[in-house]
Amino acid sequence: MSFAGRDIITTEDLTKEEILHILDVSARMEEIVTKEKISNLLADKMVAIIFLESSTRTMLSFVSAANRLSAKVISVAGAKSSSAAKGESLSDTARTVEGYVDCIVIRQPQIGGAKIVADAVDVPVINAGDGSSQHPTQALLDMYTIQKELGMLEGLTIAMVGDLKFGRTVHSLSYALSHFNPTYLYCSPKELSMPEKIVSDMEDRGIDFQISNNMEDALQADIIYMTRIQRERFEDPAEYEKLKGSYVLTKDLLKKAKKEILILHPLPRVDEIAPEVDELPNAAYFRQAHNGVYLRMALLALVLDRA
Amino acid sequence: MSFAGRDIITTEDLTKEEILHILDVSARMEEIVTKEKISNLLADKMVAIIFLESSTRTMLSFVSAANRLSAKVISVAGAKSSSAAKGESLSDTARTVEGYVDCIVIRQPQIGGAKIVADAVDVPVINAGDGSSQHPTQALLDMYTIQKELGMLEGLTIAMVGDLKFGRTVHSLSYALSHFNPTYLYCSPKELSMPEKIVSDMEDRGIDFQISNNMEDALQADIIYMTRIQRERFEDPAEYEKLKGSYVLTKDLLKKAKKEILILHPLPRVDEIAPEVDELPNAAYFRQAHNGVYLRMALLALVLDRA
Amino acid sequence: MSFAGRDIITTEDLTKEEILHILDVSARMEEIVTKEKISNLLADKMVAIIFLESSTRTMLSFVSAANRLSAKVISVAGAKSSSAAKGESLSDTARTVEGYVDCIVIRQPQIGGAKIVADAVDVPVINAGDGSSQHPTQALLDMYTIQKELGMLEGLTIAMVGDLKFGRTVHSLSYALSHFNPTYLYCSPKELSMPEKIVSDMEDRGIDFQISNNMEDALQADIIYMTRIQRERFEDPAEYEKLKGSYVLTKDLLKKAKKEILILHPLPRVDEIAPEVDELPNAAYFRQAHNGVYLRMALLALVLDRA
Repeated sequence: MSFAGRDIITTEDLTKEEILHILDVSARMEEIVTKEKISNLLADKMVAIIFLESSTRTMLSFVSAANRLSAKVISVAGAKSSSAAKGESLSDTARTVEGYVDCIVIRQPQIGGAKIVADAVDVPVINAGDGSSQHPTQALLDMYTIQKELGMLEGLTIAMVGDLKFGRTVHSLSYALSHFNPTYLYCSPKELSMPEKIVSDMEDRGIDFQISNNMEDALQADIIYMTRIQRERFEDPAEYEKLKGSYVLTKDLLKKAKKEILILHPLPRVDEIAPEVDELPNAAYFRQAHNGVYLRMALLALVLDRA
Repeated sequence: MSFAGRDIITTEDLTKEEILHILDVSARMEEIVTKEKISNLLADKMVAIIFLESSTRTMLSFVSAANRLSAKVISVAGAKSSSAAKGESLSDTARTVEGYVDCIVIRQPQIGGAKIVADAVDVPVINAGDGSSQHPTQALLDMYTIQKELGMLEGLTIAMVGDLKFGRTVHSLSYALSHFNPTYLYCSPKELSMPEKIVSDMEDRGIDFQISNNMEDALQADIIYMTRIQRERFEDPAEYEKLKGSYVLTKDLLKKAKKEILILHPLPRVDEIAPEVDELPNAAYFRQAHNGVYLRMALLALVLDRA
Repeated sequence: MSFAGRDIITTEDLTKEEILHILDVSARMEEIVTKEKISNLLADKMVAIIFLESSTRTMLSFVSAANRLSAKVISVAGAKSSSAAKGESLSDTARTVEGYVDCIVIRQPQIGGAKIVADAVDVPVINAGDGSSQHPTQALLDMYTIQKELGMLEGLTIAMVGDLKFGRTVHSLSYALSHFNPTYLYCSPKELSMPEKIVSDMEDRGIDFQISNNMEDALQADIIYMTRIQRERFEDPAEYEKLKGSYVLTKDLLKKAKKEILILHPLPRVDEIAPEVDELPNAAYFRQAHNGVYLRMALLALVLDRA
């Protein structure tokens, strides 16, 4: 199986075998970091990391991954420092940057924007988030974390909680995990429920799922995947204030949960997980963030044909 | 001929021999990139890349050039992240940064600002754009592109189209190409015509040139060099709307052009070249952007005495 | 004496021996830069340089220091490009970044923020400025400069002039230099005098000091340490305009000073030192800025156990 030259735009078209291969390579990357700290695998490669939307975590994680493989990095952060501010199209930016590098990692706010970039250039493109659409590298690191924490991927019940409408991580995760016989509990305010398209795709794939507006339903899962509810998604601020308190994970609430429940969150968190939860062994969200480096090392090595 | 320690501030004072030498070294750099991808030529050098005005292309191209020569890069992007925002003078900033690096590349909005920096420090300074004044590295990469695409520089007719008043690239190109017996067609709205100083300097240098407000006159050139007309240059927005349509290059218009006409643009483009033109072999503007890396590698190597 | 794994948050708790050790290592780093330019001392280390407040000098100086030791750098500049803008807490950001690197350098606007970061993570943290509180690396580079310029640290009279209230550099310097039997002249407008806490700590440490509102009193010192008075610190702009002229160092004023007086400034400067002063041999502020690289190389090497 070769990923050489491939774009990573969505999890929708990844097969089970491909996902397992990516996770295997990620494990190898974790070994490299543990033993050698820095590898020369990509020492002759140049990678563009273009973030036209703000980000700390994903950007640093990609730069860190590229650095650990000794790739040279050129990066842009922020829409204002970009040619986009001068009215340039995304594909023009892409075609220019292509001349400088061997691979493009891009985050930008337009749904489908990463595909536009991939179509414009010959070098491989990795989608680091395109608006509220997809965030495939996050979903893959989520799966790497689940496998590491629980020792398995098959047959798990996972509750996705919070903003399922605009939360691109749960979109990508729904597709990626669908190959592993999961049960999904989609738990959100009605205003923020999982998009119809994804629900119907899950039906087509024969996935067991339930939809709920009560967070207590999420507690019986093997995994609870929390997401941030953003105030700006609500037309009526009062509605936001009323709802947000219903989607907060506390120690108290966790007393009703499965003892071994794995708590994930793509971060950043605001109020939706109480800080008191952090000390529980179940709280895997910082470990999850750290796994991002291995997963992204794997993807860079794979698309650049060095894995 | 040595460029060691020299500043590259303007094309106005470059001799023909110097320009040809820079282009030769650029060709060698292109070979290095093709064969070795990364060279160690500047592995013990540190370069500051300071962009107090926004840019994607030029910044990435300089960082890419420095990376390909293994120079260490320290960079600043955006006026707000700079000491300038605290009221520091450009020469104070320069004198501080000088202590950290072997070479300073700077873009900033003040006409003549690059010269101020160069006068303040002992390390070589490369002007990456000073307001509407000059952009010498762009002009040199334009010439590298012309030589590569047409096999020659002597005796060409080049039409410069669009905003000739504020477009610093056409200022720098007018001086740089003047040593090669060119004919210039300056084609722009009256409001945006080439500054008097440059027109008179071209007269002094004995250059053949014509001035026109009709884009069709530009089509008989060997090269058509398009530039962006910026809305904010016009006091009357209606005037802008009326004019901008007259300076758009389309496939239809190109039917009246020389068959082999070379189409250049410093990018970013907005509307002034129709996307349909991109597929023509004449459309060299993305190749032109990519050449910027070789040219900037050459300049870094030259001023740091490693070419 | 080992600094391995230690946080550098404040100068308040540094002993005389520790400070002298840091200065010794800095001198060794200066030798490395002079002889080898680039060292491989930290070639297997990754450093995060997080600036949530704007800065040119300190940021570039840290990146330069890390580069000269061949450490890999991942950096964030500007509050907007950070997860902080999404409402993430400082300690959550820290715990995430910790997973990517071996050391965190952080500037942020909250007093005590660097301590919060240090408490949240296991990797060593270096405070690059926390609001108006402390700026320990600046104080240490100030001392390195004094030792280099005057050949000694003991028994000096140092006048600190300008904004002593919000000027974090003079806070850090007061503690750091207190071990060397100094005399302090605190010279500022009443509105901007040294915080009570620091004055009282200096009393407890048995330091000789005087407080003055007349800049002429500062001229008899061995060292005059100028700082910027910021307009925004005054409620009444007229008050600012009246005062700022009284705290400007000119050649004329320096006629009344000790002939060998050493002039320091943490930079950036606005109007408080007249440019005519720059040419005097006493004007050490640009040399002082350049020393920052050696001092920061020393701190990185020390906390990463490679010094």
